[in-house]
Amino acid sequence: MATSEYSLRRALVEKQSSIESQGNAVRALKASNAVKADVDEAIEKLNALKLEKSSIEKQLQAAVSGNPDSSVNKEAFRQAVVNTLERRLFFIPSFKIYRGVAGLYDYGPPGCAVKSNVLAFWRQHFVLEENMLEVDCPCVTPEVVLKASGHVDKFTDLMVKDEKTGTCYRADHLLKDFCNEKIQKDLSISAEKAAELKHVLAVLDDLSAEELGAKIKEYGITAPDTKNPLSDPYPFNLMFQTSIGPSGLSPGYMRPETAQGIFVNFKDLYYYNGNKLPFAAAQIGQAFRNEISPRQGLLRVREFTLAEIEHFVDPDDKSHPKYSEVADLEFLMFPREQQVSGQSAKKIRLGEAVSKGIVNNETLGYFIGRVYLFLTHLGIDKDRLRFRQHLANEMAHYAADCWDAEIESSYGWIECVGIADRSAYDLRAHTDKSGVPLVAHEKFSEPKEVEELVIAPVKKELGLSFKGNQKKVVEALEAMNEKEALDMKSSLETKGEVEFYVCTLGENVTIKKSMVSISKEKKKEHQRIFTPSVIEPSFGIGRIIYCLYEHSFYMRSSKAGDEQQNVFRFPPLVAPIKCTVFPLVQNQQYEDVAKIISKSLTAAGISHKIDITGTSIGKRYARTDELGVPFAITVDSTSSVTIRERDSKDQIRVNVEEAASVVKSVTDGHTTWADAWANFPHHSSGSVED
Amino acid sequence: MATSEYSLRRALVEKQSSIESQGNAVRALKASNAVKADVDEAIEKLNALKLEKSSIEKQLQAAVSGNPDSSVNKEAFRQAVVNTLERRLFFIPSFKIYRGVAGLYDYGPPGCAVKSNVLAFWRQHFVLEENMLEVDCPCVTPEVVLKASGHVDKFTDLMVKDEKTGTCYRADHLLKDFCNEKIQKDLSISAEKAAELKHVLAVLDDLSAEELGAKIKEYGITAPDTKNPLSDPYPFNLMFQTSIGPSGLSPGYMRPETAQGIFVNFKDLYYYNGNKLPFAAAQIGQAFRNEISPRQGLLRVREFTLAEIEHFVDPDDKSHPKYSEVADLEFLMFPREQQVSGQSAKKIRLGEAVSKGIVNNETLGYFIGRVYLFLTHLGIDKDRLRFRQHLANEMAHYAADCWDAEIESSYGWIECVGIADRSAYDLRAHTDKSGVPLVAHEKFSEPKEVEELVIAPVKKELGLSFKGNQKKVVEALEAMNEKEALDMKSSLETKGEVEFYVCTLGENVTIKKSMVSISKEKKKEHQRIFTPSVIEPSFGIGRIIYCLYEHSFYMRSSKAGDEQQNVFRFPPLVAPIKCTVFPLVQNQQYEDVAKIISKSLTAAGISHKIDITGTSIGKRYARTDELGVPFAITVDSTSSVTIRERDSKDQIRVNVEEAASVVKSVTDGHTTWADAWANFPHHSSGSVED
Repeated sequence: MATSEYSLRRALVEKQSSIESQGNAVRALKASNAVKADVDEAIEKLNALKLEKSSIEKQLQAAVSGNPDSSVNKEAFRQAVVNTLERRLFFIPSFKIYRGVAGLYDYGPPGCAVKSNVLAFWRQHFVLEENMLEVDCPCVTPEVVLKASGHVDKFTDLMVKDEKTGTCYRADHLLKDFCNEKIQKDLSISAEKAAELKHVLAVLDDLSAEELGAKIKEYGITAPDTKNPLSDPYPFNLMFQTSIGPSGLSPGYMRPETAQGIFVNFKDLYYYNGNKLPFAAAQIGQAFRNEISPRQGLLRVREFTLAEIEHFVDPDDKSHPKYSEVADLEFLMFPREQQVSGQSAKKIRLGEAVSKGIVNNETLGYFIGRVYLFLTHLGIDKDRLRFRQHLANEMAHYAADCWDAEIESSYGWIECVGIADRSAYDLRAHTDKSGVPLVAHEKFSEPKEVEELVIAPVKKELGLSFKGNQKKVVEALEAMNEKEALDMKSSLETKGEVEFYVCTLGENVTIKKSMVSISKEKKKEHQRIFTPSVIEPSFGIGRIIYCLYEHSFYMRSSKAGDEQQNVFRFPPLVAPIKCTVFPLVQNQQYEDVAKIISKSLTAAGISHKIDITGTSIGKRYARTDELGVPFAITVDSTSSVTIRERDSKDQIRVNVEEAASVVKSVTDGHTTWADAWANFPHHSSGSVED
Repeated sequence: MATSEYSLRRALVEKQSSIESQGNAVRALKASNAVKADVDEAIEKLNALKLEKSSIEKQLQAAVSGNPDSSVNKEAFRQAVVNTLERRLFFIPSFKIYRGVAGLYDYGPPGCAVKSNVLAFWRQHFVLEENMLEVDCPCVTPEVVLKASGHVDKFTDLMVKDEKTGTCYRADHLLKDFCNEKIQKDLSISAEKAAELKHVLAVLDDLSAEELGAKIKEYGITAPDTKNPLSDPYPFNLMFQTSIGPSGLSPGYMRPETAQGIFVNFKDLYYYNGNKLPFAAAQIGQAFRNEISPRQGLLRVREFTLAEIEHFVDPDDKSHPKYSEVADLEFLMFPREQQVSGQSAKKIRLGEAVSKGIVNNETLGYFIGRVYLFLTHLGIDKDRLRFRQHLANEMAHYAADCWDAEIESSYGWIECVGIADRSAYDLRAHTDKSGVPLVAHEKFSEPKEVEELVIAPVKKELGLSFKGNQKKVVEALEAMNEKEALDMKSSLETKGEVEFYVCTLGENVTIKKSMVSISKEKKKEHQRIFTPSVIEPSFGIGRIIYCLYEHSFYMRSSKAGDEQQNVFRFPPLVAPIKCTVFPLVQNQQYEDVAKIISKSLTAAGISHKIDITGTSIGKRYARTDELGVPFAITVDSTSSVTIRERDSKDQIRVNVEEAASVVKSVTDGHTTWADAWANFPHHSSGSVED
C-alpha cells in the first residue's frame, strides 16, 4: 500500500469514528429534549464531519487510481467490465424478471457464441488432436455412484445459521471476511494480533468444524446482516438432491462433476480402445453445486459447464509420446516449495520442472503444457497465468501430484483448470463398490516366472484337533500375509508347533507342523493385471470465459475525446462475430454491395452481421468494438470497400470481390493483419470515426 | 394381417390353451398321488403339445419374415440395430456397472460424435442461417417460473400403484397394453368388443383420472408383474424436484424444457434485437422428465437434449420474408381432417397447405419446410417422415395450430419435432406472474386517432353525499367497463340518477348526474403495444438421432456369403468419423504413407482414424462400415492409394498427394462420389474384401 494511501485510509477510519460519536451525541440531545439551538449546532457539526469524510474519500480515490493493484481500482475495473457484459447481454442474471436466483446466470447471444467458440476449440485442441474418446453422460446420477466416489459423505462445506432468522452462511467465509476486514481497516490492532489473523487466513482451509466454531466464538463474529448470534458450524452437502422415479425410494443427485460418468464406463472404453493403454476419455457437460451463499459473481455459480479429461495410464510408465513437443515451453510456475518459503511464482522451463521432479511425471507435464497453450491461444495473458502446485495439505491422500492453472483477475488468482494425477483411486473405488473389476491387462511377450506363497491347511488334521472350530482356523491360516506365514513356517520347522491367534475365535490355538504346509512355489504368469492411474485435467469453462473477458477488456477515448469507449480484444477464434458489414450511408447501391459481401462471407463460413441503421459510422464501430468484433467492412463505393481492424483502427482498401477472402484468411489464422496491412493500400479514416 | 399369418396365430393361441389345460392335468395327477405310469403319460402328452407349438412358431416366423410390417420383423430389426449400437458404443446404458437406471443412457464415442454433428448442423441450419439469438440458461429453475408456465400444476401423468408392493405404473400404458393384447391375441372376443377396445385406444389421451380408473376396474386390469390389485389413478408430477440453497425453503426443479429460459428473457432479447419484430431466440440444452416407468428404450428417457426455437412475431402479421424459399416443397402431410376421416398422410405442396388454410400461417409453414429440409439432410428417409397436425383435443386451448414432425421407426410413428403456434400464451403468463410487461411496441408512422372512454367522478359532490365511503365509490365508478359506463351515462341522462352497486361496500348507492361525468374522447396514439405471438419449433435431439440410426442401418452378406455385415449409411455430415486410413499390410513404408495422409486430413479438418492392426483388410472395412464411416483410404503402394466408398464398395485410385483433397471435397459436399468415380481410375477390389 502506498504511503499516501495508507495515511488517507487511517484518516478515513478516524473520521468515521468521529461521525459515529457525533451521531450518538445528536441522538442523546434529541432524547433529552435539549433546546433546539443545541441540537442544531450538533447536527451542523455532524454534517461538517461528513463533508470532510467525503473529501478524504475523493483524495483516496485519486491516490489509488494510478495504482492498478489497489482494491478500489480493481473494483472499478470489474464494474466497468461487468456493466459492459450485462448491457450487451454477454450474460444475464437468470430469471431476472422474478428477481433472479443467486449463483445462476444465462449466457446471452454474444456470451453464448463465445462459449461455443471456446468449447469448439477445446474439442479441437484436446479431443481431436489427441484422439480422445468423447462421451456424454446424464446429469441425474443415482446415489450409489456418488457414494462410491465419496461425494455423498464428503462433498460438504461448513455452514453456520443466524440463530434467529435461520439465514445460512459459509463459516469459513465469515471468518475470512472478519480477518481481512480487521487487517485492512482496523488500524488499532497490534502487530501480534495482525500476525495471528494472517495465520488464521493461511490455515483456513484446514480448520475442522470445531476449530472454526471456536474461532467464531473467540472473535465474537455474528451474522453480517442482523448481528444475531450464530449456530455452531456443521457440514452441508453441496449436491442438489432429487429422487429418481415415482416411488421416492431412489435418491439421486445432479452430478457435481462429469468425471464419474467416465470412470464407471472404464471397462467399455478400454475395450473400445482395443484394450490398450494409455488412452483418454473426455466429457463436456453441466455440473451442479448448491453453494451455501454464492459470491464473486460469475466465478462462483450453482450450475456450470465443465470440460474434463480422464487420461488412463500404466502407473509404472507415465511417459508421454508427445512430451517433447511441450518440454521447451517456459511459463510462470509456482511449486509447493516456493509457496511455503514465501517466494512468488517464476518462469520455469516445463522440461526442467519435469526432469527435476518438481512435476511428478511426463504425462502430467504434457497436460500442463497443453493447458498453457490452450489458455494463451484463447487470449489469456501469459503474465497473469500461473501453474500453482497443491500444497501437501490441499491434496487428497491418494493424489500423486496436482497443479492448478490459476488466472489473475480482479478477484485475485482464480483456479480455472485443475490438473491432477489421482493415481488409481477412482477406478478402485468403483471396483470395490460395484464388484466389477475396472482393471487393465498387460500381456507379457513371454510368460514371466514369479514366486507365489502357498498356504495349504491340512483339513483332516485340523478337524481332529479343532472339531467344529476347524473352519475358522482354516480361514485364519489362509488369511495370513506373507510375513506371518513365513514366520510360522520357520517356527514350525524349528519348534514343531506354534501358538496362533484366531480372531474369529478370540483365542490362541496351537498349530502343529502336520496341520499346515507353507511353501513358495514358482509359477508362470502370462499377464499383469493392474488398476490404471488417471491423470485428470478439469476445466471450469465459465471461469475461463470470465477471466478472458477481464483480460480482453480495455477502454479508450473516442476520437473527439469526449467519451470512454469499451473494447474487447478477443482473438478471432473467440470473437462472438468475426466481422460486421456497414454501408457507409443509407443508400440502395451500398446496401446491395453489403448483401453481396454478406453472401460471400456466409459461403466462406464467417459469422457476421450487417448493420444498415443510419447511425454514424463512428458509433457503429464503437458498438461492434464493444462486442469484440475484430473486423468491420465498410461499403463506401460500389467497387471497393475498407476493412478496419478493431484494436489498431487501421483500415485497408480492397476490391469488393476480395473482401470475404481477406477476412477469412486473417480470422482463420492463415495470414495476419500485418500481412494484409503490407499488401493492400491504406485508407485514412479521416473524419469517419468520431 | 396376411391370411396364413392369421390362421397360424389362431393355431398358436389354441395350442397354448391346450398346453395350459394339459399342464393343469399333470399337476392334478401329481397332487392326487396317481400311479407313475399315468403321470408319465400326461407329461408325454404335454411335451408333444409343446413341440407342436414350437413348430407353429417357426412357421409363423417364416410367414412374416417376408413382411416388413409384421411386428415380429420390426422387433428383430430393432434388435439388430440396438445390438450394433450398443456393441460399438454408440450408446451405453448409464451407470451400467451398478445395473443402470431405467431411462438414462450415455452417448459413447461414436454416438457423441454423431450428436455433435447433428447439433452443429442444427446451429448452422437454424441459428446462423436465420440470425437467431442463441442463449444458454441453467437447468435448475425456481418454482415461481414453472408455476407461471403451468408445469407445477399440470405437467403430470396418471399413475397407479400395485397395492401390495407399491410398484408404480402409468395408468394409460396399462390400459393401452390390455386393449392391444386383447385385440391382437384374444381371438375369442366379439367384433363388438374389439370395436369398443379400439375406441378406448383412440380416446386414451383424453380420459380423466376417474374414467381411466373406471376402465381399469371394468376390465379387471391388475399389476403386470404380480397380478395384485391396483390403486385408483392419481396425477404424478414429472419434474425432478430439488431445493435451491441451504435453507430448504426455495423449491426448484430441473427444467422440463428449455423454452422458459427464453420467455423470461424476452424483454432483454427484444431490446438486443433493436426493439424489432419478428426475431427468434434459440437454445440447445438438457431437459428432464422423471418418467413413471420409461419404456421404448432410447425414445423415452429421463434426461435428454432439446433444441428449441422461439420465434416472436406480430399476431397481426405472420408472413415470413423467406417463405417463398420453401413454398414449393412437397412432402407427406397429415392434416386434422384426414386423421378424423380415417385417411392416411399424403403428399401436399407446402404452399398449397398454407394458401388453403390447412397450415395456419406463413411463418408456421416456413418452419415446417425448414424442419423438413433439416431432417432429410441428416439422412431421415422422406417416405418415413410426415407432418401430423394436432387434433383439436390434443392442442392446448391457446394454441393457434400445431404440427408434429413424426418419423416412422420400429416403434411406430414417433414425434421428433413439435412446431406450434402458441399465440401469446407464454409471454402473458410470465407478464401476469412477474408483473414485468413482456410486450412489443409498434410505432405508428403518423399518430392514429382513437376513441377512449373517460370516467371522471366529481369528488366534491361524492364527498358531500358519501363522506368516508367516498373513496370506495370513486374506485368502483372508475373500474366500470365500457358497457357499464355507457349504460350509466344514458340512465343519468334520462332519469337524472341511478342505483349503483359498490362491491367493496356490499350495497347499492344512488349516483346523481352531478356526481360523475362520462364521455368518449378522441385521442391520438403514437404506438401500439401488444404481446407477440410465439411460434415454437422444438426438437427432441435424441429421438431424431435414434430414428436416424434406424433409417441408416442395413445388413448385407459378406463377399464369402458366410456372414451378415452391418452398415450405417450415414451421410458424411452425420458420420462420426469421415474417413479411415489403412495400410494394406503391416509395413513401415505403408505406415509412413498413412501418417502423411493423416497429417493432410488433419490440415483439411477431416476427422479420421488410422488402423494399423494386422487384421485382414476385409475385416477392417466391415468394422468401419459398422460405424458408418463413409470413406476408407487404403495404402497399397508408396505413390498411389485407393479410396473406397462405403455403400457401393467401389474404389478409385488417386495419388497420395490428392487423397485428402478428394475426400474433403466429397465430405464437404462440394462434389459427389459420382464425380470422383468419373474422374479417377477405378480399382477392382479383387480378393481384397472377404
